[in-house]
Amino acid sequence: MSLEFGPAVALSCRECGARYDLGPSFACLECFGPLEVAYDFGTVTREQIAAGPTSIWRYRALLPVPADVAAKRNMNPGWTNLVRADNLGRALGLRSLHVKDDSGNPTHSFKDRVVAIAVEAARTFGFHTLSCSSTGNLAGAVTAAAARAGLDACVFIPADLEQAKIAMARVFGGRLIGIEGTYDEVNRFCSELIGDPLGDKWGFVNVNLRPYYAEGSKTLAYEIAEQLGWRLPEQIVIPVASGSQLTKIDKGFKELVALGLVEDTPYKIFGAQAQGCSPVSAAYKAGHEVVQPVKPDTIAKSLAIGNPADGPYVLDIARRTGGGVEDVTDAEIVDAVKLLAATEGIFAETAGGVTVGVLKKLVEAGTLDPEAETVVLNTGDGLKTLDAVSSIAAPSAVIRPSLDAFRAI
Amino acid sequence: MSLEFGPAVALSCRECGARYDLGPSFACLECFGPLEVAYDFGTVTREQIAAGPTSIWRYRALLPVPADVAAKRNMNPGWTNLVRADNLGRALGLRSLHVKDDSGNPTHSFKDRVVAIAVEAARTFGFHTLSCSSTGNLAGAVTAAAARAGLDACVFIPADLEQAKIAMARVFGGRLIGIEGTYDEVNRFCSELIGDPLGDKWGFVNVNLRPYYAEGSKTLAYEIAEQLGWRLPEQIVIPVASGSQLTKIDKGFKELVALGLVEDTPYKIFGAQAQGCSPVSAAYKAGHEVVQPVKPDTIAKSLAIGNPADGPYVLDIARRTGGGVEDVTDAEIVDAVKLLAATEGIFAETAGGVTVGVLKKLVEAGTLDPEAETVVLNTGDGLKTLDAVSSIAAPSAVIRPSLDAFRAI
Repeated sequence: MSLEFGPAVALSCRECGARYDLGPSFACLECFGPLEVAYDFGTVTREQIAAGPTSIWRYRALLPVPADVAAKRNMNPGWTNLVRADNLGRALGLRSLHVKDDSGNPTHSFKDRVVAIAVEAARTFGFHTLSCSSTGNLAGAVTAAAARAGLDACVFIPADLEQAKIAMARVFGGRLIGIEGTYDEVNRFCSELIGDPLGDKWGFVNVNLRPYYAEGSKTLAYEIAEQLGWRLPEQIVIPVASGSQLTKIDKGFKELVALGLVEDTPYKIFGAQAQGCSPVSAAYKAGHEVVQPVKPDTIAKSLAIGNPADGPYVLDIARRTGGGVEDVTDAEIVDAVKLLAATEGIFAETAGGVTVGVLKKLVEAGTLDPEAETVVLNTGDGLKTLDAVSSIAAPSAVIRPSLDAFRAI
Repeated sequence: MSLEFGPAVALSCRECGARYDLGPSFACLECFGPLEVAYDFGTVTREQIAAGPTSIWRYRALLPVPADVAAKRNMNPGWTNLVRADNLGRALGLRSLHVKDDSGNPTHSFKDRVVAIAVEAARTFGFHTLSCSSTGNLAGAVTAAAARAGLDACVFIPADLEQAKIAMARVFGGRLIGIEGTYDEVNRFCSELIGDPLGDKWGFVNVNLRPYYAEGSKTLAYEIAEQLGWRLPEQIVIPVASGSQLTKIDKGFKELVALGLVEDTPYKIFGAQAQGCSPVSAAYKAGHEVVQPVKPDTIAKSLAIGNPADGPYVLDIARRTGGGVEDVTDAEIVDAVKLLAATEGIFAETAGGVTVGVLKKLVEAGTLDPEAETVVLNTGDGLKTLDAVSSIAAPSAVIRPSLDAFRAI
């Protein structure tokens, strides 16, 4: 098994530390805690990484994938632009701001990163069908990756998602099942399906393949550090849905320090939620260590997870690093999407409006240091959430093709 | 002036060879022929290029831009994936097929490449407003790049474009003027505007900045050759709107040969049009050297240019290289979009359906050699032409969250 998973050596329980062989398991048999991948990295150098492909596979020595992963049929996501956002920084009063723009990925969200790792695990475990519960972006990433890899796909979404996300998940040829309910109900349904003979030989990327899948988010940390010239940012604003992405970016930064690839400089991690689904932000503000589930009601549907699995870990990381968790209203989300577009030419989906809106709110509150090097994540694409900007989905003016008509406006 | 335009030394007339200083000119004063950029390249090595950024600026020594262009406020497009398309190749009966997937660019079309060059020229010439006539993708690329560069934008489109393209062009904050008429009428209007005081200090990327703008398409040729391991493909299928992209890819291949960066191996260039706007294909089949304008009627709106400026050059290149020009119906375009998606996980806009549809047609007709190394271009994004796949813009099924309900389907 070791060859297929590269530097990964075991699964270990995040709660009690119990170790298990690498397999399609996700919960500790001792304490029911979540399992994550444990590694034996050996030596990894900046030069080795720089000599790799311009995709997440340049970090294959830090991921649970085989050394020849780049030769396999995979979407090869990553190495997206880290945009120096001087205009937005000036508008917000920040000296040094970058936007990590993950809309450049193959299906235009960060989900291509996590799915790419899950596909390799699915292949190794002999699964013939790739599946997931999804708030939309993941469904498209899974069906696209399955098409490329030659696997079947059957994905599950809340039935009321944006049309663009539905079309994108269908066009790749997999089955797309709408569930009458919230994402959390879709997720519970998938957990039942895994225990049923119907779901045999199915790899649910965010359930029984979750330990592998989640590691894909570490590549955001690696890329940000490498693109900054091999150093850590001082402040970073990350969206929180399940919370997995935020915890894995923290894990990625810590690995880079441990391997001597970056200096051990302090960084503050800030989580961003939509007010209409802000259980982690609410817990943070109340000083709680656990998260009270909520029923989501927000235009940021890709973040609409009311019962976030990694919520407690997000709270822990925000507090440990001196960061925080904040939320913004739907109106603030729309304003932030427009602000990012007008200043930097980046059209974010509503989740990007959440991070930029929270960034703005934190600067105004004095919580963020305006002099510190700051990174904000855009994890998705505005073309998938057009309703959020429907007020400007028409020309400024419509005229006949004549100079007189143009002069008149 | 020479520093601002790097290796470019003059504008020269494509028809009569007359030379002019580098300036915002686009037509020969002697014969009204189109002007293009002339260079004095000196020595350019693979190593120099490989040491550059992962954007079109790695080829800055081959473009009319300054040596420090990567430090300026620009969208930094390019270095998109060249996808090894084994599944699609197998479906079509081709031994070696790659898809150059330009949907990974910042605004998800190849237009970011050409606009990036035009922005630098606009800066140098002191234009304060960036403008264009557009079938949709260009409008978004221009307004995004203007936002990033800190320029004003005012762009012109046919009023009946896809909603996603309209929203994308508006969100970046520029003025978007819908014109009641076809693209060709929009284009004529812009030519009038340039001669009017209203359009003073305006850089129309595809009119008075066209010689610079058009050079951006050469980067597709450079990237394809470098990503194939520094060699030319044997066959390539390219969409034809104005025809500029196809002629510049040919120019790029010839430059690489002249500079000794690739071996001088033969390549065949094939142009692809939608049957509802196929003036170049019609001229090719009739054996004509000039193109008879048509009134477009096709779902491939980004290719709907009825009076293509570079039509005669496309005919010449297709004949000289032993290639051809072919067209496909709207139904074939939709089928090809779905085929590309289901085999490779790439969601193309209708223009990508045109190239893949033509590829299929040419293989079936025996015009393409199934054993030769072939590249097909996808120049845009399916999220912008969702209407083309509206028949599948719904879940396969909608059920309650229960195993019984799932079993029933």
